[in-house]
Formats: sequence, C-alpha cells, structure tokens
Amino acid sequence: MNFCSNCGTPVVLKVPEDDFLPRHVCENCGTIHYQNPKIVVGSVPEYEGRILLCKRGIEPRLGHWTIPAGFMENDETLEAGAAREAQEEARIDVEIGSLLLVANVTHARQVHVFFRSRMRTPDFGVTHESLEVALVDEKDIPWHDLAFPSTEFALRRFVEDRKAGIERHHVALMPRRF
Amino acid sequence: MNFCSNCGTPVVLKVPEDDFLPRHVCENCGTIHYQNPKIVVGSVPEYEGRILLCKRGIEPRLGHWTIPAGFMENDETLEAGAAREAQEEARIDVEIGSLLLVANVTHARQVHVFFRSRMRTPDFGVTHESLEVALVDEKDIPWHDLAFPSTEFALRRFVEDRKAGIERHHVALMPRRF
Repeated sequence: MNFCSNCGTPVVLKVPEDDFLPRHVCENCGTIHYQNPKIVVGSVPEYEGRILLCKRGIEPRLGHWTIPAGFMENDETLEAGAAREAQEEARIDVEIGSLLLVANVTHARQVHVFFRSRMRTPDFGVTHESLEVALVDEKDIPWHDLAFPSTEFALRRFVEDRKAGIERHHVALMPRRF
Repeated sequence: MNFCSNCGTPVVLKVPEDDFLPRHVCENCGTIHYQNPKIVVGSVPEYEGRILLCKRGIEPRLGHWTIPAGFMENDETLEAGAAREAQEEARIDVEIGSLLLVANVTHARQVHVFFRSRMRTPDFGVTHESLEVALVDEKDIPWHDLAFPSTEFALRRFVEDRKAGIERHHVALMPRRF
C-alpha cells in the first residue's frame, strides 16, 4: 500500500495512538488502513459415497487437485459462499452440511472454513477455474497431488470421521507447503 | 475507495473479466482491489464458574457489556487473536479452549469466531477499551444490556452447553441489532 484509497495522498507506516501495530496511515485525511486475514470458504462435496474434486485451472497450484473453495465475498454467509464456490468451480448444486474444518493458514494471512456438503444431483462440469472435475471413490483420492495443506487435512478428517460415523469439526494450524 | 492504493490513480467500479461482481479496478496499473469480510475473534472467559464481561469503553455500543473480542490481525492464529483481545480488553491471561460459535454477521461484513477460554488467574483490570471489567455469576449476566447479537448468542449457548455438560460448537446467522 503506497497511497490513501480515500484521498490519494501517499501513506506513512506508523503505530496509531492506542494501537500496538504499524498501520498504513494517511496524514492528510486521517484514514487508518487496516489489513486483516481473508476467509476462504469451501466444502467437501459428496454424492452417493463418492467425493468431488477439482483440478485447479488457475494459479496458485495450477494442475493440482482440490475441493471447491475460494474467497468469501461481502454480503454472503459462509454457507452461501461455500455453495457459490461449488457452483463456480465444479458446476455442482450442493446442500451445505456440518462444519468440518477451521484452519489457520497464518503464513498466507487466511482462515479456511470448510463444510461437508451433499450434491443434490450427480451433475458436474469443468469451468474456467477447473481443468477437470471428478467424482472419485475414497481409494482414488490423489493424496500426493493435492493443492494445499488444508485440502489434504480436510479430506483426511472427512474420510476418518465418515468411517467412524461421526461429523466432528476440527480447528487446526496449517503448515507452510514445501 | 476512490484511489488505487498501489499507484494513486482514481479507480473505477467494474466487473473484471471472468468475475461476477463489481470491483474497484485501477486502469493505470491493473490492480483489482477486492474487499472481503473481516474476522472478529474472541472468547467467553471463565474462572471458577464465573464469566468475565467487559463494559465497552469505545464505540460502537459504548457502555454496553460484551465478551473480549476484536478484529483478527495478520500473522496470528484465531486462538492467539482471541487471547490477545482478552489481554487488551480485560488484562486477563487465558487458555483458549473449544470452539463455541462461528457467526455470520453478514450486514456488518464480518464473521465472528468465539471460543471458550479459561482464566489462568483471577486477575483482571480495566483498559482504555473497557470502562468496567467484571467476573459475574451466570444469574448476574446483564442480558438486556449486551452489546451485540453475537454476544448474547455466544453467552446463551455457553451457559446452556455448560449446564448440559457438553462443549458444542454453533454456526449461526446473526440478526441486525434493532
């Protein structure tokens, strides 16, 4: 951040009064520009026991497999955002279920919030965000070709919990990807 | 947003290619300025059965009671943020426990993530953010003088779950305050 988005004046980096962290501050109009973590919302979609995965068609991690997820927008709920991402990335119509994972992805300044979801129909399709979309059996999950640590963590917990017949939620810190 | 925070040029509001929502776009340097919901982190602190509450010393809702909570910062986990807010707003040292509430506060473009927490010592104190801090019995919670819908929702679920001897999590949509 170089300029004030309100008045266009160059900003300075300093700790405002009663604050404890440096912020981008405009000394012309007084605006303090806070920067905070972003929320990524998504789900693990299921249809008759199979799991839907997308091969990423955009960076980062183009060509690697993931669950449908993306940045939460203003004016939507977490559940609506997760359903929207499922539609945008895989052309699927899902009912959002229980909370699966709240992941601290601190190094990327993100929090990932993933739910279980159920596809209302078996229909799916590729989009400009996904090179391929597939409904796979648990044994065919490409564990060594997943896009992000939170993808793998969510899928591992999903299959473990399903085997145990429970729908737990998990709160965890994700490692940086190697 | 009126100016590009990268190069200082006036921005225009338009739907970028392959997008579906209007964004503030800089036609000089090409930066797309996304705006997303912010995360508020906090906890319901407990000490020997009593619950810690703060009377807000700043707007919004100055003078009303709440649990220690505030905007999550970059480079911290949800749990670290909730513990930091407890220290900043009530001078308490807490151990963060189980997830209590994930609240869609859509009208404010926020998601509130609240945990249960346990005070390591009975010490607390006022700060510039809190006019008063108090450790109260359940029967003395000022239900009609709480700051936000998510404050009331978190406290109601906290006391219900504690009575039932369970530590559930709740995902809910908060109404706009009247």
